[in-house]
Amino acid sequence: MRICKTPDETRDALKNESAIAFVPTMGNLHAGHVSLVAQARSRGGTTVASIFVNPLQFGPNEDFDSYPRTFGADCEKLENAGVDFLFAPTEREFYPEPQTYRVELPGIQNQLEGRFRPGHFSGVATVVLKLFHIVRPQVAFFGKKDYQQLMVLRNMVRQLALPIEIVGGETVRDGDGLALSSRNAFLTPAGRAEAPRLYRALGRAREAVLRGDADFSAIERDAALDLDTNGWKTDYVAVRRQSDLQTPLPGDRDLVVLAASRLGTPRLIDNLEMTREG
Amino acid sequence: MRICKTPDETRDALKNESAIAFVPTMGNLHAGHVSLVAQARSRGGTTVASIFVNPLQFGPNEDFDSYPRTFGADCEKLENAGVDFLFAPTEREFYPEPQTYRVELPGIQNQLEGRFRPGHFSGVATVVLKLFHIVRPQVAFFGKKDYQQLMVLRNMVRQLALPIEIVGGETVRDGDGLALSSRNAFLTPAGRAEAPRLYRALGRAREAVLRGDADFSAIERDAALDLDTNGWKTDYVAVRRQSDLQTPLPGDRDLVVLAASRLGTPRLIDNLEMTREG
Repeated sequence: MRICKTPDETRDALKNESAIAFVPTMGNLHAGHVSLVAQARSRGGTTVASIFVNPLQFGPNEDFDSYPRTFGADCEKLENAGVDFLFAPTEREFYPEPQTYRVELPGIQNQLEGRFRPGHFSGVATVVLKLFHIVRPQVAFFGKKDYQQLMVLRNMVRQLALPIEIVGGETVRDGDGLALSSRNAFLTPAGRAEAPRLYRALGRAREAVLRGDADFSAIERDAALDLDTNGWKTDYVAVRRQSDLQTPLPGDRDLVVLAASRLGTPRLIDNLEMTREG
Repeated sequence: MRICKTPDETRDALKNESAIAFVPTMGNLHAGHVSLVAQARSRGGTTVASIFVNPLQFGPNEDFDSYPRTFGADCEKLENAGVDFLFAPTEREFYPEPQTYRVELPGIQNQLEGRFRPGHFSGVATVVLKLFHIVRPQVAFFGKKDYQQLMVLRNMVRQLALPIEIVGGETVRDGDGLALSSRNAFLTPAGRAEAPRLYRALGRAREAVLRGDADFSAIERDAALDLDTNGWKTDYVAVRRQSDLQTPLPGDRDLVVLAASRLGTPRLIDNLEMTREG
């Protein structure tokens, strides 16, 4: 695996590659990332990963400084997973000047995650657009755990006419259902035991929708109550349609239930897709 | 010259071209555009032009509807100038859905032209970014008459890490100094005779700066007064530094004086670059 530190070096290294599959990450890799790399590898071209903890997508009171950085272990995992090129710039190389040209997003950026993380999705969209311009992939892979991020990036690519296929990778879970996440490392042992409640609550919400319960507000309230009576502080539970995460209309079949909740310090997010009968 | 109407067709037509020089236009072509095409041709690769009157960069009270559209004559000029591919989408092909993902710009977008045309530069940056994603040029040419546009696009490309060289083409002028512009067609005969005053006023402002006059406000006022006492309605005359169009600091050598003024209905813009001694 060749490691490139600067945009110029990366561009130069990739200039003769005609089929690039790309897995952008913030490092601290787990089995979810590795499964994205496996999907990228299966495309048969050149597999490129990136590691960059993007300051633009963290709010002033968020965990940018404490976000786990494990570069050596990450390189080993990527190498073992068969990545050909790793782009791992420093902040100074990626943002040599204050980033004043950014991606402006539609109103969905202020809902769900965006309501609790102002500016987050603009930061995500901007870093990914720059990464796409540097790596120039034909296909890029993002985990479904960050469902709103995946939706934002998919819509950005279509609206900005980028010739890139966006693929969502299934969320990888521990045996008890907890979605893998770098932020799980901040759970206490008791928190870790409690954490799968989020997945179970989402599962019950999904069951209720699939049973035909159309009172989404009640479903959302029940799930939040289940969490909050067990020590969680829930930001939201929301049943939305998959395409743009707006409130479902009666005819919308492809739905997703999303949640974000704090368990002590760590803030966990998760979601489950579903298709109801038409 | 092959004419492509859709993004997909354009991408497909250009997929094997490795060196593309690109001249984006809004049509109604004049010698200024033709000189940009000549520069593009001189690069020796494939020359691509586009014609698209971009609704996103026109304000609600601006001249989108009356903007001159002369597709047949434009095609003839491009063909004669040696263009290989023309991308000429309809509005519906270019914006199949409302464009909610856009380029967000720094504060300069609200100064000079931006002060009088709110949202204009975001509309320009967004259409050009999409065009770049579709055409994927190595180099793109823009006229210096739209100086602020050129500056915005140059900075956008650098900040978003697009692998594209941006070249500014010299403003082409009539014998009496008037900068060629599609909007000159809206001048009355008397207006056409008066119009070169803009160029002359900029020329005197430049002379004053190069003579060492450091009172830019007085220089700007004098030029505006010269215009307004002769029937113009001046939006601004401004001496700025070239790199970011901010107010010059004492050490800045590369300057430009820019102006926008109405002569009856048409609103004319022009500018002159200068380098003062250090």
